[in-house]
Amino acid sequence: MSILTQDAARLLDAADPLRSLRDRFLLPDGLIYLDGNSLGALPAATPALVDNVMRQQWGDDLISSWNKHDWIGAPQRIGAKIASLIGSMAHEVIVADSVSINLVKLVAGALSLRPGRRVILSEPGNFPTDLYMVQGLAELGLCELRLAPADQLVNALDQDVALLLLTHVHYKSACLHDMPALTKAAHDVGALALWDLSHSTGAVPVNLNESGADLAVGCGYKYLNGGPGAPAFLFVAERHQAAIRQPLSGWMGHSDPFAFEDDYRPASGMQRMLAGTPPILALAALEAGVDLIAEAGVPELFSKAKALSQLLCDGLLAVGTRHGLKLESPADPSQRGSHIAFSHPEAHALTQALIARGVVGDFRAPDILRLGIAPAILSYQDVARAITIMADVLDTGAWDQPDYRRRHAVT
Amino acid sequence: MSILTQDAARLLDAADPLRSLRDRFLLPDGLIYLDGNSLGALPAATPALVDNVMRQQWGDDLISSWNKHDWIGAPQRIGAKIASLIGSMAHEVIVADSVSINLVKLVAGALSLRPGRRVILSEPGNFPTDLYMVQGLAELGLCELRLAPADQLVNALDQDVALLLLTHVHYKSACLHDMPALTKAAHDVGALALWDLSHSTGAVPVNLNESGADLAVGCGYKYLNGGPGAPAFLFVAERHQAAIRQPLSGWMGHSDPFAFEDDYRPASGMQRMLAGTPPILALAALEAGVDLIAEAGVPELFSKAKALSQLLCDGLLAVGTRHGLKLESPADPSQRGSHIAFSHPEAHALTQALIARGVVGDFRAPDILRLGIAPAILSYQDVARAITIMADVLDTGAWDQPDYRRRHAVT
Repeated sequence: MSILTQDAARLLDAADPLRSLRDRFLLPDGLIYLDGNSLGALPAATPALVDNVMRQQWGDDLISSWNKHDWIGAPQRIGAKIASLIGSMAHEVIVADSVSINLVKLVAGALSLRPGRRVILSEPGNFPTDLYMVQGLAELGLCELRLAPADQLVNALDQDVALLLLTHVHYKSACLHDMPALTKAAHDVGALALWDLSHSTGAVPVNLNESGADLAVGCGYKYLNGGPGAPAFLFVAERHQAAIRQPLSGWMGHSDPFAFEDDYRPASGMQRMLAGTPPILALAALEAGVDLIAEAGVPELFSKAKALSQLLCDGLLAVGTRHGLKLESPADPSQRGSHIAFSHPEAHALTQALIARGVVGDFRAPDILRLGIAPAILSYQDVARAITIMADVLDTGAWDQPDYRRRHAVT
Repeated sequence: MSILTQDAARLLDAADPLRSLRDRFLLPDGLIYLDGNSLGALPAATPALVDNVMRQQWGDDLISSWNKHDWIGAPQRIGAKIASLIGSMAHEVIVADSVSINLVKLVAGALSLRPGRRVILSEPGNFPTDLYMVQGLAELGLCELRLAPADQLVNALDQDVALLLLTHVHYKSACLHDMPALTKAAHDVGALALWDLSHSTGAVPVNLNESGADLAVGCGYKYLNGGPGAPAFLFVAERHQAAIRQPLSGWMGHSDPFAFEDDYRPASGMQRMLAGTPPILALAALEAGVDLIAEAGVPELFSKAKALSQLLCDGLLAVGTRHGLKLESPADPSQRGSHIAFSHPEAHALTQALIARGVVGDFRAPDILRLGIAPAILSYQDVARAITIMADVLDTGAWDQPDYRRRHAVT
C-alpha cells in the first residue's frame, strides 16, 4: 500500500468534478471533518433560508403560511426530493418525525400487512434504535424480535416472519447488505423487507424499487445535511399504501384533518404516515440540505467517496498497522458505505487526539475509530493531511494523555 | 354591554404593566393577530438565537456541540423551564416529539401503570389527535376508548378505566375543565388522569402537582411561541417515573445510549420518554419562546387575557348579536381559557372578511369563529379596533363575497 502524497492529492483535487461543492458549505478553515456520517455539515444556503422562514413566513405571514408558503405540503414536497435519491417514486416517500418513531409506524405497518405472523427478523448489532423500537412493540405483545447474524439471516427466514428489518449500511462497520438478494429471500417466505437507509441516503446509490423493497426509513441529519436532529423520512412501496395501517394515527394523517372529526379515517397514500404537526423550521433546513445533495448527484458522490476512502484506508493502514490499527470494514470499497471503521485498543484516546489536531472522526464503543467520508466537503488533500496527522499521533504516542482517555457523554 | 372606545382603550394600555411585551415580538405593524392560540407570534430574540445555533454551533463546532453547547441536555433544560409554568418540578417535564406522539407514550404508559384495566375515558369533541392516538392503540387491541360528555364524565368512571384523558382548555369552546376535581374523581376509582395542556401552557395558570395530575402533554407552538410545529412536552408525576413504561423506546431513552447495546434498558426519570435524536434548531426556537413567557409570568398574562377577552366579547356581542353572532364559550372569563368562540351561520366567510381587514382569527368547522387572546402581543386598542372592524363587516354585509366563502386546505 502506498501513501497518498500532498502532490498527488493536489493533482487529484484539480481533476475532481465535485471540488467546488466544498464552497457550498460553511465549515471552519482547515478542519478535516470525518463525521459527516453522524452530523452532516452546514450548507451555506441554510441560514438565510431558515431566517426567511422565521422572519417572513412565521413572523410576517403567521398562520396564513400553512397555505401561502405551503407549509402543509412540506412533508410530501421534501419527501419527493428524497425519493429521487433512493430509487423510489415521489409519492412513496414522506418526511416526518424521527427514524425511531418512523420505525414503529412501519414495523406495526408490516404486521398489519402480514396478519398471523409475529416475528421481526434483524441482526444483532444493528443500530440500537432499530432493535429497541421492535422491543417496545414486543413488550406490548404485538410481535417478537428474532436476531440472526448477517450470514444466517436467510436461514432464519420462515413462515413466522412478518418482516426482515435491516440497516442497509451498518452504522459501525459500514458493511453494505445486498438489498435485492435479502429482499427476495424475505419475499420467498412471504415476509416483507424494511430497510433503514440512515447511513445510505445521500451517500450510497440505493434503488428501493429495483430492489423490490417494501418499506424504508432514513435519517435527515447525516449525509443529507439537514441539521442536528433533522426530521427523518419513510418510504412505503405504492403496492402497500392502500392496505397498510400504522398505529401512530395523529391528526395530520387523517383523511380530512380540518374536519375535526372524532373518528380517525386514514388519509390516502403517504399522508397517513404523518402524526403531529410538521416541524417547519427543521423542514426548511432539511430541504436546503436535500437540494444540495440532489444537485451533486449520489452516484457522483459515491464515486468520489470510494476513491477517497480507499486512499484514506490504504494510508492509515500503512502508517497504523504496526501500532495496532486494524480495518474493521470490508476491504472492497464497493462492499461498504461511505465511512470506514478501524479498531485500536486505545480507539477512544486516539479519536480524541485526532480531534485535538483538527481531524474529527468519532469513537464507537468498545474500540472503534469511525471515519466518515462525506465527499461533498472533503478533498484529496484533506485525506493526505489526515494520514500525516495519524502517522504523527501514532508514531509519537501523542494519544496517550489522560484528557484523551476520559470519556464524555457523547463522542 | 358597553363597547370599548379608543379613548378608554388608550388609558387601559397606558396602565397595562405588560404593554412593553409587544416590542419583544416581530409582528407586522397594524395587524391584530387573534390566532396566537394556533400559532404563537415570533419572539424578536428568536432569529438571532437560531442563527447562532446554525452558524456557530452546527456550522463551526459541528458534532462537538452535543457536549460543548449541551444539545444533549436541551430536552431536560427546556422541560425544566416549562415545568415552572405548569406547577410541576423541573425533573417532571421533558421536551420531545409532538403532542400526538407524546400522547401514545403516556396513554400506553398509563396502561403499564394500571395493568388489567383497558378503558381510556375521554369526551366527544376533544381535540381530534387525542382521540385518534387512543384509537390507534385500540386498533392494536391494547385498550378501548370510552367517550362521555363533559357533564357525564364522573359517572362514566369505573374500575375498568385506566386513564381519564382530557384537554384542560377545549380547543374550540375554550371551556376550562376543573382539573383538581376531575383528577380526584379519576383517582377515586383507581384511574390516572392525563391532561392535554396544549391550549393552557403559557396562557392559563396550571398547577399539575396541586391538582394531583398524573400525566400531561402540551404544545410548543401556541402560547409558548416556539415556532410552527415546535416540539411538544410531556409530564410524568415523580411518583410514577420509576414504574412507567412507554413503548416508543428509542435510543435516546436508553439508560446508556452510547453503549450501543442490543437490549433496551429504560433510562431513569423523564429521559426514558425520549425516542429519537432531539431536533436542535427547533428546540432553540422553542427555548426563546419559553424564556419570554416565563419572564412575563403566566398569572400576569392570564389577568390581562381575561380583561381583554371580556372587553372583546362584550363589544362583539354588542355589535354582532343582531347579525346572528353567538357566544359559544363560557360567559365567565375565569371559566374559559385564553380564546373565545363565537358561532355564526357564515362563520367561514366572516373569518375571511376579518382577515382581509387585518383581524386574524380562525374558523373551526362547522360554524365557529375562534379568536385567540395572546395578551403578550395584544393591546386594548387592538381590541377596540377589532370590535369596530367587526361592526363594519357585519353592518355592511362585507363578508358576503364568493372569495370569502371558498375554503382552503387550512384555515
